[in-house]
Amino acid sequence: MTDAYVVGVDMIKFGRFPEKTVPQIGAESALMALDDCGLSIQDMEALYCGNLFQAASMTGQRILQEIGQTGIPVVNVSNACATGATAFREAWASVKAELYDIVIAVGVEQMGKGLLGGPGGGKGIPKEGLFGSGTMPAVFAEAGMEHARKHGTTFEQFAKVSVKNHHHSTMNPKAMYQIETPLEVVMNAEMISYPNTKLMCSVNVDGSAAAVIASEKKARELGLMDRAVKVRASVLTSDRWQERDLVMPDVNTCTREAAAKAYEMAGLGPEDVDLVELHDCFATAEILHYENLGLCAAGEAGRMIDDGEVALGGRVPVNVSGGLLSKGHPLGATGIANIYEVSTHLRGEAGARQVEGARIGLTHVIGLGSACGIHILEAA
Amino acid sequence: MTDAYVVGVDMIKFGRFPEKTVPQIGAESALMALDDCGLSIQDMEALYCGNLFQAASMTGQRILQEIGQTGIPVVNVSNACATGATAFREAWASVKAELYDIVIAVGVEQMGKGLLGGPGGGKGIPKEGLFGSGTMPAVFAEAGMEHARKHGTTFEQFAKVSVKNHHHSTMNPKAMYQIETPLEVVMNAEMISYPNTKLMCSVNVDGSAAAVIASEKKARELGLMDRAVKVRASVLTSDRWQERDLVMPDVNTCTREAAAKAYEMAGLGPEDVDLVELHDCFATAEILHYENLGLCAAGEAGRMIDDGEVALGGRVPVNVSGGLLSKGHPLGATGIANIYEVSTHLRGEAGARQVEGARIGLTHVIGLGSACGIHILEAA
Repeated sequence: MTDAYVVGVDMIKFGRFPEKTVPQIGAESALMALDDCGLSIQDMEALYCGNLFQAASMTGQRILQEIGQTGIPVVNVSNACATGATAFREAWASVKAELYDIVIAVGVEQMGKGLLGGPGGGKGIPKEGLFGSGTMPAVFAEAGMEHARKHGTTFEQFAKVSVKNHHHSTMNPKAMYQIETPLEVVMNAEMISYPNTKLMCSVNVDGSAAAVIASEKKARELGLMDRAVKVRASVLTSDRWQERDLVMPDVNTCTREAAAKAYEMAGLGPEDVDLVELHDCFATAEILHYENLGLCAAGEAGRMIDDGEVALGGRVPVNVSGGLLSKGHPLGATGIANIYEVSTHLRGEAGARQVEGARIGLTHVIGLGSACGIHILEAA
Repeated sequence: MTDAYVVGVDMIKFGRFPEKTVPQIGAESALMALDDCGLSIQDMEALYCGNLFQAASMTGQRILQEIGQTGIPVVNVSNACATGATAFREAWASVKAELYDIVIAVGVEQMGKGLLGGPGGGKGIPKEGLFGSGTMPAVFAEAGMEHARKHGTTFEQFAKVSVKNHHHSTMNPKAMYQIETPLEVVMNAEMISYPNTKLMCSVNVDGSAAAVIASEKKARELGLMDRAVKVRASVLTSDRWQERDLVMPDVNTCTREAAAKAYEMAGLGPEDVDLVELHDCFATAEILHYENLGLCAAGEAGRMIDDGEVALGGRVPVNVSGGLLSKGHPLGATGIANIYEVSTHLRGEAGARQVEGARIGLTHVIGLGSACGIHILEAA
């Protein structure tokens, strides 16, 4: 069983591109990731495409129409907010299976405006299937309040997540927003669903990200090991009915189970992780995931944000990219954009936001409905 | 690298089930395939779901809501008419990669009424993305006429494909239609796009099919080798622009390339194949694919149908299930329904339509847009 490496990876600057098609947006990051490793689409043996809102429309093949129809296998996957991570994982599995030596995974989304899951943000998705009876803001607000009841987490602590991630994004030229949002601004923004104000909800943007994955042999042959990033673990989980948390139907259980499996697969523990890109679809969600991912003990999440442990320069910086709250959240792209962010740090190429000496990074996404994807990456 | 086996497989009787949901239809075949090998969803390590028209709606997870949310990874894939074959292939790859020892692939579709690609049959699909400027009936009519111009293939020969497949379906209790359609009935049916009459177009039906795939070690451990079917080859291709056939933008090239790769992977040739389930979305398409799959030389397809070589009892029976023309064509299910049909013959369990002594079978699907999936299966 070969090891698999990310040898090329990139993302476009997230934004709003109503004048472009989904395949055009996807093609941009595909070409950038290929350029990142000095290869072309002719070198790829398969393409795995993650796209949610146009999942039925052969997005992967239409990306090849833009950049070169070479006859390679194309697999189109969708998995709610875990869509990009699932495309990456299927690509990775094809290399592990020794079906291919080198493949590309592309994640892309063109979002409606508005709040995630709110008006215009969920077109084409039957809500009863994905979200149960609640809207996304309500679900994550309730989960945050449950944490507050159990552990005394405060509105201010939740708001600090947004302050931190917006601050991080000022150092990320590919983030949608690159502006500071002081605590009073976050707390005084329009209230969407208590305790999440508008600045504590992820930003619906268009975007794409892509990764070239190669077997160890191929990466060495191509002389790409210097900047290669090893995939130490790739895990996907879904809802488990016996263990449902009453408030959060799957997000917590799914993530805890995926994290346990990922650490086991990697032979590592949370204490080994130097940085994390996790699914901060709402500020309350980030707080929950500190604990779900084992970054701290139950009930310690509020203290972690207070103490700056999860900020750049802290013990385990979280969402140094700016996260979904400020970098933006194009659903199908997010999972691969996380891979880009962590890889960039492991390569020591993250500039002003570099997590110094980062050797191990973890990415996490979760789609309601449900799918949780976790990857653990290591500097080669 | 382990070998992978189909150890359980089944499909529902295709029909029209407007009162059911897509997950309910998919759950039925999943339970049947599990029952076929005496296992339950608790025994499965992952689920791969193929569904096109609701591709964005977490169909795989919603199937688990029906039959048991065990927390396993779920991957939702779509690839036009190759959707089911792609789900099967991703499941197979996960076993080959030794990520899992035993997994289930489910394909499901709820179709609109009417002709494939015609009014009501392509809801949710941007036509310009999948089909170019032409409608599906026009594309396949033109391809048939090109074959007629080159090789003298006659309207009657095209019509005989439909007569054959409808005859086959009278022996398949799971086919949508199980009625004879004499040559004059086929030729005098409503003309859709010359030379394809209404009885020479695939039938839009609801349906699902599922397959349980296991590693050799797991299949032996479970005592399931007696009825196991070995996957000798699994190949997927997409459009190749340099080699486009002017008339058929991808269907021919895609299939020829996939067939060459599949025979190479299996270490077999077309002469070794005992039965074929191929993509007869229109009668003209079946004629083209005899040649594309190497079942006969270029220009010999008309003669093959005249001589009965592709009928049950002939040299290489094609679409003994009744094919898309009579069994029906629920897009996301078709690729796995083909696996069911071939597996049933390789197990010697096909009853009145049994291809005697069948040891090797080939399945073929092609989705415009484009994706061609070919599997070669062998009796264990």
